[in-house]
Amino acid sequence: MTANTVHPPSEFTCATADLPGEIVITDPDIVAGYCRDESRLTEAGTAVAVLAPRTTEEVSACLRACHAASIPVSTRGAGSGLSGGSNATDGGVVLSLHRMNTILDIDPVERLAVAQPGVITGDLRAAVAEQGLLYPPDPGSVAMCSIGGNVATNAGGMCCVKYGVTADFVEALEVVLADGRVMRTGTSTVKGVAGYDITGLFVGSEGTLGVVTEVTVRLVPAPAPALTLAASFADLTSAGTAVAAIAAAGLPCSAVEILDHTTLRAVDEVAKMGLGDAAAMLLVQADSEDADAILAKVEALCAAAGAEVGRADDVEESTMLMEARRLALPALERLGDWLLDDVCVPRAKVVDLISTIEGIAVEVGLTIGVFGHAGDGNLHPTIIFDRSDAGSLAAAHTAFDKITSAALELGGTITGEHGVGRLKAGWLARELDPVNADMQRALRKLFDPQEILNRGVAL
Amino acid sequence: MTANTVHPPSEFTCATADLPGEIVITDPDIVAGYCRDESRLTEAGTAVAVLAPRTTEEVSACLRACHAASIPVSTRGAGSGLSGGSNATDGGVVLSLHRMNTILDIDPVERLAVAQPGVITGDLRAAVAEQGLLYPPDPGSVAMCSIGGNVATNAGGMCCVKYGVTADFVEALEVVLADGRVMRTGTSTVKGVAGYDITGLFVGSEGTLGVVTEVTVRLVPAPAPALTLAASFADLTSAGTAVAAIAAAGLPCSAVEILDHTTLRAVDEVAKMGLGDAAAMLLVQADSEDADAILAKVEALCAAAGAEVGRADDVEESTMLMEARRLALPALERLGDWLLDDVCVPRAKVVDLISTIEGIAVEVGLTIGVFGHAGDGNLHPTIIFDRSDAGSLAAAHTAFDKITSAALELGGTITGEHGVGRLKAGWLARELDPVNADMQRALRKLFDPQEILNRGVAL
Repeated sequence: MTANTVHPPSEFTCATADLPGEIVITDPDIVAGYCRDESRLTEAGTAVAVLAPRTTEEVSACLRACHAASIPVSTRGAGSGLSGGSNATDGGVVLSLHRMNTILDIDPVERLAVAQPGVITGDLRAAVAEQGLLYPPDPGSVAMCSIGGNVATNAGGMCCVKYGVTADFVEALEVVLADGRVMRTGTSTVKGVAGYDITGLFVGSEGTLGVVTEVTVRLVPAPAPALTLAASFADLTSAGTAVAAIAAAGLPCSAVEILDHTTLRAVDEVAKMGLGDAAAMLLVQADSEDADAILAKVEALCAAAGAEVGRADDVEESTMLMEARRLALPALERLGDWLLDDVCVPRAKVVDLISTIEGIAVEVGLTIGVFGHAGDGNLHPTIIFDRSDAGSLAAAHTAFDKITSAALELGGTITGEHGVGRLKAGWLARELDPVNADMQRALRKLFDPQEILNRGVAL
Repeated sequence: MTANTVHPPSEFTCATADLPGEIVITDPDIVAGYCRDESRLTEAGTAVAVLAPRTTEEVSACLRACHAASIPVSTRGAGSGLSGGSNATDGGVVLSLHRMNTILDIDPVERLAVAQPGVITGDLRAAVAEQGLLYPPDPGSVAMCSIGGNVATNAGGMCCVKYGVTADFVEALEVVLADGRVMRTGTSTVKGVAGYDITGLFVGSEGTLGVVTEVTVRLVPAPAPALTLAASFADLTSAGTAVAAIAAAGLPCSAVEILDHTTLRAVDEVAKMGLGDAAAMLLVQADSEDADAILAKVEALCAAAGAEVGRADDVEESTMLMEARRLALPALERLGDWLLDDVCVPRAKVVDLISTIEGIAVEVGLTIGVFGHAGDGNLHPTIIFDRSDAGSLAAAHTAFDKITSAALELGGTITGEHGVGRLKAGWLARELDPVNADMQRALRKLFDPQEILNRGVAL
């Protein structure tokens, strides 16, 4: 802590003098808790204050004040991000939306829900479920992440393989621009082509274009309870072959997840589920009326690829099996310091990516657990290292770079669902073509000429 | 024809002197055929030339030349638009992409197709069908419209109620910007959040941000042949009730179309199908494995709303019934001059919109046929009038304005799938909030500072 953070600089005090006192938090111990998300090895500055507005008008007042004084603003939902997208900037403020956490409307006829950005995604899913509806996106952090953060990162999850990502469900937004102006985007109709899709531009923009203060999402009828199949493979290549076969068959599975040997062992150590000693396991779910028939076809494809296949007998056993998948990151965390990647490759290239990662692990001499959304080609290689050991830390960075490079070389992307954030800000230019990168920068400047919003993130 | 168009002005001749002669068409009779789309009562200027490039490089050269000389450019696909979006500007050129009509790739494993913009959408659908795949969007003009035009308008169609619109299927684009720079957007992976969604910004931008020269679309496994149900209603309110009930039940129908009495009579006059004398007919399709069970539920909901329901006995009869729907516009065209609207309201408001339109028809003393995608709330009221009669023409304009206003008042949008174009350029500001409208204009200026692209369209 520096003296600066105990006594916010007078520039800040003047700029925010007109804000209601209840929404300005300057206690450095509290502020410190808001300065970084769940990512590792990302830079995070020291903010001078947390602003915690309760209404759109207060968000607008906060941004007007910061804009007038050129104070950097890092917008934060639940702080569960994995790429440092909401990490603070030195001398800036953290705009935390946790107090704006009301579900404003659920309309079962139009199948729409309207929520403030701080609503926890799991709470939204639970509320719509009571009306027989589903909000599909289910990031691993669903129990603690916020819908506003999901919009910012265009969050994914396990059931995207059937239902799509956050962008596929956001119909309309209320947004406060960097200068405090309030704007509505989108429509509440199923179709609508009046004007540019500014809603879509904001989804996945990582808080750099404005602050989302209200989200209208599309819902779907609640599906049947999902049935689950677990397929154990003696080698990763066979698992990759099965993934490609399931994809090519076009079966409407509601999850096609993979856990490699390292991840399986870590999960089993925590959960004692008897997951066995396979090189890889696929967990496949189906939630449609004909789920049984779908899983029978998946079973045949996995068996043809040499797997040992088991089907959950009931919904409880299904849920338990998927719990193994949800434990992947918490279980790997116990092995040491970790650095999580989030690459996505064409589905047929999943097997190449996994075998490349295995080679990288050997080359750098670290354990790398691989799990993720195999059906979408979106994997989360998790590098285990010891940050107190400079050599180990350097090896982790090397592995991370090699994995991300490999994804690009396989025709993939540097981030499937976590966002560029601060973690991969240096990588974006390697993925985008130069003209596209120019237009991205120009777009940011158009919405936020002083670049006060989430400075250092993404671009 | 003015002398100007016979001998293009020297400014144009100088600007395009370096373009290959084969791509520059200045014969005024040919040029005239490219100056307007299928819309009625929209303004169209007289272009000095048609440029018909064959490659991305030639598109880039055309735009560099026009940009340098500030010559307006109206980009045209197949000219099947219904809002004047590709109509020419006086003294400008029409950039016609009809020669760029090659399907470049179909990848059944990743379920992606790559096409040049001039590919006819029906041809693309036929080509992917040969590999057991479906490209879902199916605008009424599917047999003659181009995929590039579909991207420009974010085209819809009948099966959007189940599958979504063009935007839901466009994964990546190659685009030439107004100044001739070439840019790639999007990824070929299922998920990807690296940078702003510029792909989505271009879909539905009506050619005002750049010229699309390559489109990568996502495909789905070909569904089972669709089964069809026809429900005849004695009054429009009952039909609206059934639409709302089907929507609320969340049944995965692949089409929920409506034809009112005027449209039914017009179609029957052409096709002699014995469609009867109902006030309205719903045509509902299902194309999943359990299509029969879905249609049984739809049948019950329609019967409960008082309908007489018939099921097609086989795929041929199903196809024939949907042909009645496809004939709606051609059949209404025979009744006189026509002006087609394209409003979209919340699904539960379809019945209110239809009864409002009935009132408007009586009020202005014109026939208005109503048909469209009831399941999405997207209707196409078609005003029949006599343009040689000033009173009738004025009444048509009045009806059009009243219908569009009514849609906005019902919480809807001025355009569900045809685009703003020139037809509704004056309406956009009534739908968008002022800050949003400001940002839309700023976005346009960012991509095309001189506003040479589709000047007069949309904004």
